[in-house]
Amino acid sequence: MKNSLEFILEVGKLKSVIRQTYMPDQQRFENSAEHSWHLTLTALIFKDYVPFKIDLEKTLKMLTVHDLGEIYAGDTFFYDQTKEQSSEEKIALQKMYKNLPEKMQDELLSLWEEFEAGDTAESKFCQALDRFNPFLYQLQNGGESWLRNKITYTKALDKNKHISHGSPDLWDTYKTLATEANNQNLFHKEEENA
Amino acid sequence: MKNSLEFILEVGKLKSVIRQTYMPDQQRFENSAEHSWHLTLTALIFKDYVPFKIDLEKTLKMLTVHDLGEIYAGDTFFYDQTKEQSSEEKIALQKMYKNLPEKMQDELLSLWEEFEAGDTAESKFCQALDRFNPFLYQLQNGGESWLRNKITYTKALDKNKHISHGSPDLWDTYKTLATEANNQNLFHKEEENA
Repeated sequence: MKNSLEFILEVGKLKSVIRQTYMPDQQRFENSAEHSWHLTLTALIFKDYVPFKIDLEKTLKMLTVHDLGEIYAGDTFFYDQTKEQSSEEKIALQKMYKNLPEKMQDELLSLWEEFEAGDTAESKFCQALDRFNPFLYQLQNGGESWLRNKITYTKALDKNKHISHGSPDLWDTYKTLATEANNQNLFHKEEENA
Repeated sequence: MKNSLEFILEVGKLKSVIRQTYMPDQQRFENSAEHSWHLTLTALIFKDYVPFKIDLEKTLKMLTVHDLGEIYAGDTFFYDQTKEQSSEEKIALQKMYKNLPEKMQDELLSLWEEFEAGDTAESKFCQALDRFNPFLYQLQNGGESWLRNKITYTKALDKNKHISHGSPDLWDTYKTLATEANNQNLFHKEEENA
């Protein structure tokens, strides 16, 4: 029990991992803990937009733990993510989990690895949600993060097209809203001759 | 879909509902969204400390929505909660859910009502977690909220004893740690002749 209590306090540090998503109604950047909560709620709302059978319990667990690797490594902006960072996060997780019962360690690490790989029904849906919610905030805040990080409309569509693997409906909505946003100059201007 | 997108942004406001729990490692008060996330993770860790069978998917859903009534009503300090406030929260939720598909409205409201009533296996466990995590933070921050809100050791034990309905093990741990905290003067001093 004592090790579990320490673990619970330790994972609470996800509340101080700050993301690139500015939330206009709160006038601050989002942290990864509240982001993870927002995704579990969004999963409940969008679960019927998935064209294959998913295990909802597993989906909710996966969303709950999907960002825990950031506690020691920090949030990496989606457009800058690399495989090396993912390996570092895995090592950090193994360290953080080491005092939990072995079965629990295996389950939590396995959920995180499955999310990262994105090969299963649940992880495809989770990855789609993980991209969709920040997108909704960008539309609300005038593309703050797109402009600051020089993300063009073309790059956004290219880097987020895997949303279609988790939910074609969500991807159609993404494309429609992104096109509107582009017409309103919410993305960084495309480089000529690029 | 459009109504769902508006709902997702609307529930995001739970991130600006500030609780009474001071988080010493973040040097700020906790918000209800990140608190809800912390509970879903704690449920995964403590699910084997429940002496009856629980539906984990339902538990995770319930923890995700259990504080949504606060978005319009604000957080009510646990020691000040009344039945009237619960009724106001229900009306606020019905308003917030009104543009969702009817089946979804029913599910989300029903989960919240079940949590509030605390009569089922899952809601007993969720209520225990909802009391246990803030307690862990109080131990870390020197009883900041207990002292500020004049909560005595006797009152804390009395108001939290329902933790035992969700998990006798968690309640035993609570009592042991609360007694240690009382010996360290982390609670408001008991009134003599009270």
